[in-house]
Amino acid sequence: MLFPEGVAIDGISGEVTPSTDRYTKKLSELSGLFHDAAAFDKVVAEGGDPIAYEVVDYRKQECDICFGTTIMMPGQVGGEYFMTRGHFHERKDCGEGYYTQSGEGLLLLESREGEVRTVEMKPGICAFIPPEWAHRSINTGSEKLVFVWFCATDAGHDYGTIRERGMRKLVVERDGRPAIIDNPNFA
Amino acid sequence: MLFPEGVAIDGISGEVTPSTDRYTKKLSELSGLFHDAAAFDKVVAEGGDPIAYEVVDYRKQECDICFGTTIMMPGQVGGEYFMTRGHFHERKDCGEGYYTQSGEGLLLLESREGEVRTVEMKPGICAFIPPEWAHRSINTGSEKLVFVWFCATDAGHDYGTIRERGMRKLVVERDGRPAIIDNPNFA
Repeated sequence: MLFPEGVAIDGISGEVTPSTDRYTKKLSELSGLFHDAAAFDKVVAEGGDPIAYEVVDYRKQECDICFGTTIMMPGQVGGEYFMTRGHFHERKDCGEGYYTQSGEGLLLLESREGEVRTVEMKPGICAFIPPEWAHRSINTGSEKLVFVWFCATDAGHDYGTIRERGMRKLVVERDGRPAIIDNPNFA
Repeated sequence: MLFPEGVAIDGISGEVTPSTDRYTKKLSELSGLFHDAAAFDKVVAEGGDPIAYEVVDYRKQECDICFGTTIMMPGQVGGEYFMTRGHFHERKDCGEGYYTQSGEGLLLLESREGEVRTVEMKPGICAFIPPEWAHRSINTGSEKLVFVWFCATDAGHDYGTIRERGMRKLVVERDGRPAIIDNPNFA
């Protein structure tokens, strides 16, 4: 039987207390994600394979919904900002909310039909992610980007689709600001 | 087809922009909820039937999850703090999250089996509400209590069970602080 509980969310560090699970993605685990492979190898080697992001879960299998945080470090690879892998949900009826707590970023979304949208990520904005829209978050700032996510417990993650063909757009720094450009490698 | 969107949530006012729906509960609509019926009539009459709380929705029927805010005014009726009606979900597998943005309160919960729990509501605490736990939020502070909720779009509300028999506990002010006492009227 499940019991109610107060879960502390630190909007600056992203810590979730208590949490049920967590994982860390080091930059080296994001091989193939960035446009500039040589720059990627260099940042991994010279930066000591930094952490790119962490995901902390509060997830109970007996409950239909779950939540947690994503903590994204600032950084760039060849002008591209640090980003998450990007995924569709396995369940085609499942959306998600990304409620930014601190930092700044862009949420890059792409529908199954190939439409592209972005949503600004900043404190006080809850991004609504409809079903069947792949989503990737991108830290465009100089501090951590921390957001609370909430979705169905069994929404599932399809990372493969985006890993294989990339997304149609890249988010890069141009003149000190984020710019959205076509991905020349989009398959 | 649904499109992504950035939804602004004001953690102080509770405003949601854009929102899809909202409702306001005036105190008079909460008749029968408070222990002291005479005090209730007096507060309604002398206070000009104040707003007790508002609920603002961001809800798309084609998406499995939804979110919004609840904005609870401070106030008391015969020593009992302003509270929401309290409800179970109609779908027995549906939980909910209540993420407090500002103010202070108590979340009072009661399982189908009659177990009682409370969770402190204050900024940074996300209350986890498991399936099959009735929940009522109570503003124990002197300011608005604002929280973001998220749950399944079709979780449904069963208000009747609590309306008919009440909850096992009352939350009242004692020596300037909230105290949890037995409800003498619990049926």
